[in-house]
Amino acid sequence: MTSSPSLSPDSRARAALVAALGAAKILENPGEPYDRDSSSYTAVPDLVVLAECVEDVQQVMRLANEHGFAVIPRGGGTGTSGGCVALGGGVVLSLERMNRIVSIHTENLVAVVEPGVITQTLRDAAAAKGLFYPPDPAGMDASTIGGNVATNAGGPACVKYGVTRDYVLGVEAVTPTGERIRAGVQTRKGVVGYDMAHLLCGSEGTLGVITGLTLKLIPLPAATVGLAAVFASMADAMRAVTAILTAGHLPSALEFLDHKCLQLAGDDLPFSVPGCTASLLIVELDGARDQITAEMEAVKGICVATGATHTMPGGTEEERERIWGVRRRTSTRIRAHAPITISEDIAVPIGRIAPFIELVPGFEEEFGLDIFCFGHAGDGNIHLIVTAPERSEKHRVDDGIRAIVQQVLDMGGTLSGEHGIGEAKKGLLPMELSPESIRLQRGIRRVFDPNGVLNPGKVF
Amino acid sequence: MTSSPSLSPDSRARAALVAALGAAKILENPGEPYDRDSSSYTAVPDLVVLAECVEDVQQVMRLANEHGFAVIPRGGGTGTSGGCVALGGGVVLSLERMNRIVSIHTENLVAVVEPGVITQTLRDAAAAKGLFYPPDPAGMDASTIGGNVATNAGGPACVKYGVTRDYVLGVEAVTPTGERIRAGVQTRKGVVGYDMAHLLCGSEGTLGVITGLTLKLIPLPAATVGLAAVFASMADAMRAVTAILTAGHLPSALEFLDHKCLQLAGDDLPFSVPGCTASLLIVELDGARDQITAEMEAVKGICVATGATHTMPGGTEEERERIWGVRRRTSTRIRAHAPITISEDIAVPIGRIAPFIELVPGFEEEFGLDIFCFGHAGDGNIHLIVTAPERSEKHRVDDGIRAIVQQVLDMGGTLSGEHGIGEAKKGLLPMELSPESIRLQRGIRRVFDPNGVLNPGKVF
Repeated sequence: MTSSPSLSPDSRARAALVAALGAAKILENPGEPYDRDSSSYTAVPDLVVLAECVEDVQQVMRLANEHGFAVIPRGGGTGTSGGCVALGGGVVLSLERMNRIVSIHTENLVAVVEPGVITQTLRDAAAAKGLFYPPDPAGMDASTIGGNVATNAGGPACVKYGVTRDYVLGVEAVTPTGERIRAGVQTRKGVVGYDMAHLLCGSEGTLGVITGLTLKLIPLPAATVGLAAVFASMADAMRAVTAILTAGHLPSALEFLDHKCLQLAGDDLPFSVPGCTASLLIVELDGARDQITAEMEAVKGICVATGATHTMPGGTEEERERIWGVRRRTSTRIRAHAPITISEDIAVPIGRIAPFIELVPGFEEEFGLDIFCFGHAGDGNIHLIVTAPERSEKHRVDDGIRAIVQQVLDMGGTLSGEHGIGEAKKGLLPMELSPESIRLQRGIRRVFDPNGVLNPGKVF
Repeated sequence: MTSSPSLSPDSRARAALVAALGAAKILENPGEPYDRDSSSYTAVPDLVVLAECVEDVQQVMRLANEHGFAVIPRGGGTGTSGGCVALGGGVVLSLERMNRIVSIHTENLVAVVEPGVITQTLRDAAAAKGLFYPPDPAGMDASTIGGNVATNAGGPACVKYGVTRDYVLGVEAVTPTGERIRAGVQTRKGVVGYDMAHLLCGSEGTLGVITGLTLKLIPLPAATVGLAAVFASMADAMRAVTAILTAGHLPSALEFLDHKCLQLAGDDLPFSVPGCTASLLIVELDGARDQITAEMEAVKGICVATGATHTMPGGTEEERERIWGVRRRTSTRIRAHAPITISEDIAVPIGRIAPFIELVPGFEEEFGLDIFCFGHAGDGNIHLIVTAPERSEKHRVDDGIRAIVQQVLDMGGTLSGEHGIGEAKKGLLPMELSPESIRLQRGIRRVFDPNGVLNPGKVF
């Protein structure tokens, strides 16, 4: 499979699409937002199809095989690796109109949804019935659940609740050749045949177009309380993380910001920052209010015992909002800070977070970069915002990233904890996966997509 | 792929195995236990190889491809569907000697283990460090962790903690062609390429031989408390299940026994059974002792409010043991009760448990069977022990099982919640999976195993 091959529909294919689907479902001169996602990749697709039902998706895939054009599935466009951008031309297949919540079963604790449902909409609908869909990727106000499943999206809640995959029970999909398949189950368990549902999950729109989902829900926790704790160093903060987890606490969020993030946000922080290496932990617990209030006192005690110089309570919604505002504003400021900003999304074993972050200044110096680290301390997933002062420095950024990724891999980590490969990280993929593993995965892809029409050129 | 093809090693292949591995790793005249698992299938293999390292496994697979013999991987032999029995002849590849716990990382909350580690041994080793490996399949005193992963084993704790798959971070395996691959990560998140680790999980020894695992651990709950509650009917018991879950409680076990189980165990029960439709719920909560003690009072209140006629506390180890003893003894008595006993392992959406069990007497009458139901109320996984009075009734049992499975599928269920397909349920598999899904799965299998040497004839 070559990188981003040109697979535009010709005039016969365009006519066939219009004839099969009707003009109302096709954008013939598409522009924003269909030319981009939340990465820096942009490309105007030849056409956009706004599918309204499974049959529409089947029609598109059948015509793609017949006429030889590329189909690029698209959810909310919040991906950060270019996965839904039509870089080699082709038809963007948007699932946004398939946005029905079919049912939320209180007794069965499942939701049955179409792929275009906005993640937050599902969370709200579940909460209205006393149920909880835990995955909380950063873009959940705009991301679709289908896109979340296609990329196996993460988020702060993963430390306690796991990733999107852990909530996928059943997947209905259209294969690249236009066949409908059901994978997985509507029940909470199932071991019949290979785990096709979870193979589709995280396949980044290369093995099938997700057209329906049965998702696991759990009881909605009654309350959430937060805590922000400032430490003199990342090593101190990470000692607190280990102490919290091994004391038997399982926070619903356990986030960190490094000293550079805090310095950048310094004048805007609701607390003072002690010294130039100060780091922040954000801890949340959810459950019955009296239980978690008592538990948070214990967690606060652990933070103080491991060296917290300042703590800020997050018992009320306003207090929690103030804490998360620190993280959000930091992120915004970093992006405003430099012309080149590249988000990396590495993960290391939890115990290697502090040692890894201690190595970051060395990479900054060697490659002339400014690197900001924040992320999910409870699961080792570190968002690195790699910035450089001028556009001409792009190659130094790339060299620096390769060196950092090699370090991450040497520490037993992975180059992407939750963002995926898409287009952005294809070049890095062979650093992590062996030729034999890539060979097997390409073989699987060919079984599903013999003509190479579904999101060609992406991932590998 | 034909059913159970004869793929015995010839004399040259046998000689090559001895030359490559040494006689000390080979059983030339194997008998028990290598001729069976916990199903009713038995077959004496041609040879047993007792692998001691990854290279041994690679040698076996390379020679299998070169000489054309079948390799059947084996863990603890506790499977219930014949998956590790050499029904068509061939070499049983036992992983029992690869039983080292390589490390349990407190900071990283992971265990790195060889596949032959006994599940309970891992649980104990984790607990000794304040950590918890939650999956608790019934055979965990004898099952291996590699076998658990190969079958994606379940257990009572799934309702709160999920299945084995949810604890698999990374898998090292030898492919059917003898190549070593690493799949997944050593971190808690990872989305690089397809989800090969979870594809291997549950593939029942058909896509690779697992040679190493990185497993997710969580903090060890401080305490566990139990409760047994007797209800006048299964419908009442299931109302309690729904009420418990939707009130925000997440029990670490939520098991049921139907009226026939209770009647069979009647004289041996530590409580009286009110009427002929009485059903039992077993509830456990884990966490900090004072929290769960208070929470169990609330759960008990829900049980009483939904109609429990009797409750029995399980606050102490002795009391918990007394409660679980009811379930264990029931299971033993059922097996002693009839010459033909077949374990089915269906799962239905939680809300369909009671309606399904109400249909069971109809199947008993129609097919002349005696059916005992118990299992995991919190996740809809029902163990049906289908019994019949005489050996000649086997075909009626089979017909009855097909009718039951069809009913389960019509209710949105699955034919196997945790036992898998192996040999036992191959005939039922096409009732659940579409021809297109089976075609894709066979295609995946061919990508991994072009010569069809790894556990041929199993699953599909």
